[in-house]
Amino acid sequence: MDEDQLGAIADELISSYDLDGTNERLPPREAVEAVLDQIKRLLFPGFYADEALPQASRRFRVGTWLCQLHDRLSRLVRRALVHHAPDRGTSALRAEAADVATGFLRALPRVREALRQDARAALDGDPAARSIEEVILTYPGFEAIMVHRVAHWFYEAGVPFLPRAMAELAHQKTGIDIHPGARIGCRFFIDHGTGVVIGETTDIGDDVQIYQGVTLGALSVRRSLAGAKRHPTIEDGVVIYAGATVLGGETVIGRNATIGGNVWITTSVAADTLVIESAPSLEYRAPRREAASELEQTSDKSHAGSASP
Amino acid sequence: MDEDQLGAIADELISSYDLDGTNERLPPREAVEAVLDQIKRLLFPGFYADEALPQASRRFRVGTWLCQLHDRLSRLVRRALVHHAPDRGTSALRAEAADVATGFLRALPRVREALRQDARAALDGDPAARSIEEVILTYPGFEAIMVHRVAHWFYEAGVPFLPRAMAELAHQKTGIDIHPGARIGCRFFIDHGTGVVIGETTDIGDDVQIYQGVTLGALSVRRSLAGAKRHPTIEDGVVIYAGATVLGGETVIGRNATIGGNVWITTSVAADTLVIESAPSLEYRAPRREAASELEQTSDKSHAGSASP
Amino acid sequence: MDEDQLGAIADELISSYDLDGTNERLPPREAVEAVLDQIKRLLFPGFYADEALPQASRRFRVGTWLCQLHDRLSRLVRRALVHHAPDRGTSALRAEAADVATGFLRALPRVREALRQDARAALDGDPAARSIEEVILTYPGFEAIMVHRVAHWFYEAGVPFLPRAMAELAHQKTGIDIHPGARIGCRFFIDHGTGVVIGETTDIGDDVQIYQGVTLGALSVRRSLAGAKRHPTIEDGVVIYAGATVLGGETVIGRNATIGGNVWITTSVAADTLVIESAPSLEYRAPRREAASELEQTSDKSHAGSASP
Repeated sequence: MDEDQLGAIADELISSYDLDGTNERLPPREAVEAVLDQIKRLLFPGFYADEALPQASRRFRVGTWLCQLHDRLSRLVRRALVHHAPDRGTSALRAEAADVATGFLRALPRVREALRQDARAALDGDPAARSIEEVILTYPGFEAIMVHRVAHWFYEAGVPFLPRAMAELAHQKTGIDIHPGARIGCRFFIDHGTGVVIGETTDIGDDVQIYQGVTLGALSVRRSLAGAKRHPTIEDGVVIYAGATVLGGETVIGRNATIGGNVWITTSVAADTLVIESAPSLEYRAPRREAASELEQTSDKSHAGSASP
Repeated sequence: MDEDQLGAIADELISSYDLDGTNERLPPREAVEAVLDQIKRLLFPGFYADEALPQASRRFRVGTWLCQLHDRLSRLVRRALVHHAPDRGTSALRAEAADVATGFLRALPRVREALRQDARAALDGDPAARSIEEVILTYPGFEAIMVHRVAHWFYEAGVPFLPRAMAELAHQKTGIDIHPGARIGCRFFIDHGTGVVIGETTDIGDDVQIYQGVTLGALSVRRSLAGAKRHPTIEDGVVIYAGATVLGGETVIGRNATIGGNVWITTSVAADTLVIESAPSLEYRAPRREAASELEQTSDKSHAGSASP
Repeated sequence: MDEDQLGAIADELISSYDLDGTNERLPPREAVEAVLDQIKRLLFPGFYADEALPQASRRFRVGTWLCQLHDRLSRLVRRALVHHAPDRGTSALRAEAADVATGFLRALPRVREALRQDARAALDGDPAARSIEEVILTYPGFEAIMVHRVAHWFYEAGVPFLPRAMAELAHQKTGIDIHPGARIGCRFFIDHGTGVVIGETTDIGDDVQIYQGVTLGALSVRRSLAGAKRHPTIEDGVVIYAGATVLGGETVIGRNATIGGNVWITTSVAADTLVIESAPSLEYRAPRREAASELEQTSDKSHAGSASP
């Protein structure tokens, strides 16, 4: 391509860029990821720090890490705040960002304690789990709740953008999509987790277990409902098996209820109840040799078919 | 291990390598990812460039980026072409690759305009969305459609391998699997997205919304059907809720129809229709205290069970 | 924050760290990933090596790679062993780790041959597949089985932690969650794959095909069952379509049976049988214009609703 051609394309792109306004830039994904990594190192240094913490120097090391996190977090929060309120003064934003960072550092021990309990719950809930360490290092459900407990703190602190960016990093890694607004009690355990979706106004009690493909969602996606309670309440001790869907802001799943796999629920369930789908009627056909062609002819009425591009 | 042992294993591996022929090497994942990153930087410099574009120099910067992309893209396309036609002359392949790269650069402003509309549609469609910037930076559905609109351009241009490699990078990040052959209209919105599968010959109109776990698939996977229309047509304004499955090349979902969650469809649906699954019959059992053991005894007939390894 | 404040938080964190005991550190994710990359390079140098293998020097190169892998693998295995048996002597652990590494290197040619057959099966099973190379480089199902065949070898060798860490790396990339304990026969093909879960004691025969969202799971998750056969047996030639769930350690899906999409099965199926769900009764309502508000009013009984936060 010659320079004129390139110049023409550049001009076209640039005039399109101008349509977007001159917003302050939001922090890029990498900046959010770097801060999350610093937080993980402080939460579980045995797993996320580059080297072991020697007894003699660990107070200095942890202190240094806290300092570094405070600096970095303050900058990140300030960028998020300035994006949403570009007219506020620089020094006010800087002070607010530093306060948020300080508040988070103070909350770290509590966040860590909650996560230790989550890891313990995973070990108790999965016969295939071998040790707490295996849970922390390899369970996607633990990664998801770890990031969620952090992101939710910033959500509650009113920081824009950052909580969602953190949640999305965890979603990308784990396939578990928890909105940072969701409130989740102690000892929460998600197993496997791919496809789990938990909405913004969900309330989850203590000792809840959830499996892959579960949706805790809304009944309507109209924008006018932004802010309202749109997602269900799950009380203490509830277990929700794979692929189940629970919808609606007024739906309450009562204490210790069990929701069976694939169940679809849009009304409340009483405490201690087991809800399962009645046996679906299956059809058994034989032999299979002609199945491939038969599938095509009969599929207009059946659940067969490849479901595959 | 001593040298003889290592040598014996090396020999065994090498003679196995020879079974694969001496194909030209396809471009590695990293090369495809690097080009995608350059493309994203040109599409949304405010989000993907390392630094802000200063007003004074931005025409030079964008021109430079275009040049760099043209070079890199030409090499990548040439490697994909030579892999599939190793007998064609080097200079012919080189010329064709450069033409493809030029064509793509020319298309960039149109691709960007389509993506701006997609981002707007996401903001309009999700009550939890706060700003266009949040959509662009954190919505997996936006990442998926961004990569798809790029990959589809190369698919239409007849470039082998590259479109699929791009699509798979997005699949890996987002859990959304869109075959680069799928044709997708304006203002497309996928929310959450994990588990979405959209097949090669799918046709999607304008203003379509899709939720997590939706499959737009084929009824048969016989190889003899390669090339035929195997996947459905989704007309303008259709909404397909989570977990629904729509199969078959002759299946048409008419304008503004709504497909409810988990619905399984293999025949056409008229315009403006709402399709929902009739209330499945659920069984409620109490108390739950013995549920764990009961689950095992009754599970042969029920939808309970952990669905969990 | 001043030093006193930081010191107080540091002290609180450190006393919490002490609660976790002084376990030897498990190898971090990066170390596992680096070894997996070395293994992939030896399995498919045309795809995972940085440069082509020249005919003249390739025996030296492959030998060097084997040496490097042996070193790195020995260290990694030793760290996993020491974590689970901190009281064993250093030299005994070192010797056992070296033996495991040697055994794996010896197995590499067999692992490679199995994977070549898997890639071939993917090409045969997917009309959209264009070449073996495309399968190896871009199919998530191939990535998943490649890592599984490696991880399963270490599982059989009794190495703790490492197999699970490998499996989780593949899960993160592909959305396919195969426990390293699962036994999987020749020519295995998973298409799309997001959301697939295969449990620890699953037995899968030869020529089996599985689509996205399939669960091969347990009926109960009580810890007392750890070690028992909790997951199903899938015989040769079975095809399981998207979203189907097969549960239970005594459930056997017989040779060449076909399980239709979304089917939920907790009992055995005879050979050559096609199992599909009977047509669910769908409700069609028109017009759609009021659908949004109607959805909210009727959703307590229906499968409509957004299933979306």
